[in-house]
Amino acid sequence: MSQLSLRKEGTARTIAMKGGGYYSERTRGAKDVIDNASGMLIEAVDQILPPAQGHPVTLADFGAADGGTSQEAIKACIEKIRVRFPGTQVQITYTDLPNNDFSALFRNLLGFEQQVHRTYLTELEDVFVNACGIGFHQQLLPDASLDIGFSATAMHYLSEKPCTIDDHVHMVGATGDAARAFAEQAAQNWLDILLARAKELRPGGRLVMLNFGIDEQGRYLGNTGGVNMFNTFAALWQKMAQEKIISDAEFKDTAFPQYYRTIEEFCAPLEDKSSAVFQAGLRLVTAHTGVVGCPYRRAYDEASGAMSAAQFAASYVPTLRSWSEAVFLSGLDNSRALEERHAIVDEFYKRYESQVANHPDGHAMDYVHCYLALEKVKL
Amino acid sequence: MSQLSLRKEGTARTIAMKGGGYYSERTRGAKDVIDNASGMLIEAVDQILPPAQGHPVTLADFGAADGGTSQEAIKACIEKIRVRFPGTQVQITYTDLPNNDFSALFRNLLGFEQQVHRTYLTELEDVFVNACGIGFHQQLLPDASLDIGFSATAMHYLSEKPCTIDDHVHMVGATGDAARAFAEQAAQNWLDILLARAKELRPGGRLVMLNFGIDEQGRYLGNTGGVNMFNTFAALWQKMAQEKIISDAEFKDTAFPQYYRTIEEFCAPLEDKSSAVFQAGLRLVTAHTGVVGCPYRRAYDEASGAMSAAQFAASYVPTLRSWSEAVFLSGLDNSRALEERHAIVDEFYKRYESQVANHPDGHAMDYVHCYLALEKVKL
Repeated sequence: MSQLSLRKEGTARTIAMKGGGYYSERTRGAKDVIDNASGMLIEAVDQILPPAQGHPVTLADFGAADGGTSQEAIKACIEKIRVRFPGTQVQITYTDLPNNDFSALFRNLLGFEQQVHRTYLTELEDVFVNACGIGFHQQLLPDASLDIGFSATAMHYLSEKPCTIDDHVHMVGATGDAARAFAEQAAQNWLDILLARAKELRPGGRLVMLNFGIDEQGRYLGNTGGVNMFNTFAALWQKMAQEKIISDAEFKDTAFPQYYRTIEEFCAPLEDKSSAVFQAGLRLVTAHTGVVGCPYRRAYDEASGAMSAAQFAASYVPTLRSWSEAVFLSGLDNSRALEERHAIVDEFYKRYESQVANHPDGHAMDYVHCYLALEKVKL
Repeated sequence: MSQLSLRKEGTARTIAMKGGGYYSERTRGAKDVIDNASGMLIEAVDQILPPAQGHPVTLADFGAADGGTSQEAIKACIEKIRVRFPGTQVQITYTDLPNNDFSALFRNLLGFEQQVHRTYLTELEDVFVNACGIGFHQQLLPDASLDIGFSATAMHYLSEKPCTIDDHVHMVGATGDAARAFAEQAAQNWLDILLARAKELRPGGRLVMLNFGIDEQGRYLGNTGGVNMFNTFAALWQKMAQEKIISDAEFKDTAFPQYYRTIEEFCAPLEDKSSAVFQAGLRLVTAHTGVVGCPYRRAYDEASGAMSAAQFAASYVPTLRSWSEAVFLSGLDNSRALEERHAIVDEFYKRYESQVANHPDGHAMDYVHCYLALEKVKL
């Protein structure tokens, strides 16, 4: 599931952390983003209304994958809930698409994947978890049942790809009708997401969302001043079309079902008093953008010569591949044998790696997020 | 996961039903059992207390596998809830072990596995689902949050195997210390199950459970007057030990982590006023046993000669294999290559099939269940 790819990368790293430092290095970026926002969750706990007598405080992590990267932040949140509302039970719902690996989620929560079987679920009393395997573009929880909703690096995924992008592979390079169609799809999806959450939240409830986006300086994932990652994807894929390794139709059919919203796009329905979202009681509390540096680039820079460009390329490209490969595979025609499709995509990432090894300057997958805090007011 | 094997068999069949009548024939037994009990769920809806204003009615299916066999019964239950409490939202939690295929559950609920995408979740408004991937021997839901709990053909699985069974493969053939150890483990697990449910249920809430058991005539799964299925398993496995195909240690290490309780064992903690279960407010409403005939045997008998004994054996043994194979595989020593272990188990079921083909009389996997309805009273 493409929605999960980036988070799943985080997953693999979390699980592999027991093996040593190499993999924990690989998860640092996604976890840094959530740790950055841990204070926003604590602030949310401070603001929610007390639960009704005998009712739990409820949390949800939307687009949670295996729950690995958010586990520490959620633990801190529960501990804060226990301070503010002693003796209160806590219920946490993890959501993701149907094909998510929910077994990995529960094994993680139960501590089966850790050498030391300590997780918030095994350590803290009176905490209950469940999972909902349905996309977050629709209402997933009963009306007014949620105290704090959380989402990290998930809501850039669209419910569907509105059209092809003929001359690029991502909406950041789309123009004209394609750019407009992606923007419209994203605007509708964002309304759907916010209206669903407005129904789920109790009055006084909070949403904390860390979404991939485009910041005030036009920066976005893999485009923070150096080589543009998505332009590199597009150029290498286009070259393979020119060389007839893939067809022109396959190039056109390849597009990430994603949209990076600007802070204005994120905030618009929350500030326009006539919008359905505003009328449903959702209000903007805070919005800001932030960049979290690429851990691979940082490791290379900090090695100051002790790591070769080839070594950097070999460490860097697999992280791009982990969340983007499914998109390039799905662009290829089904008439090709599966092995052939995999061979083509192998060649594609080999070319990316060669390019980085030959000209390492400026390659980095920095994370650019919009950090949003919202509240549901009583109408 | 052994707990799921029998229900998973139902799953495979449910998914495959679109392919025609052969597979639906294979699920008939498990689904008949639930359909038998559909009235018990409707009765439960009649008895629960109205939900608090703005709160959903909550259901849970404990040990649900992919939710296929209970789907019709749950739909009828929701429809009855809507008649009794118009406009009320409904929340359903499906539980199973962490390694359950929760993706199959959600795909089933969303109608992805059906030719016609109609399930209660796609057809009925204001119904919300989630899953909990933790075993039902512990509390899975917050205190006093559950209106109706349901479980079918799942709670005969023990939380762990208390000891080996040296001269048999199932507790139905165990004697002496082994029989006592299994009985004690089962008694403790049953207390754990009931105490967990007592915490989860709201006052007025109901439990409907259809558990494999031993009836008043001593009948149990595959032992209803003809050839005893578990004795056949044990004899064939023992013969393979005598022939040195498996070792004596492997024979001893093979045992189903199950216990078939009698109706007295099911009811004891609910009738003993000094038990923790009774004191937690759980009360017995009804208990009865019932036998649902083996659909394979029925098809063979009804064919009256048009089906050969070999054809019957070829249709019958795979259903036994689907839920028992993991137990025989796990009894084999890990020092054997995986292929060798599979070859041994292939030979085992080949021998079972030959025995049925040569002497078909009396072979049948009739289901024997104890049907229980419980209520949580206000203390």
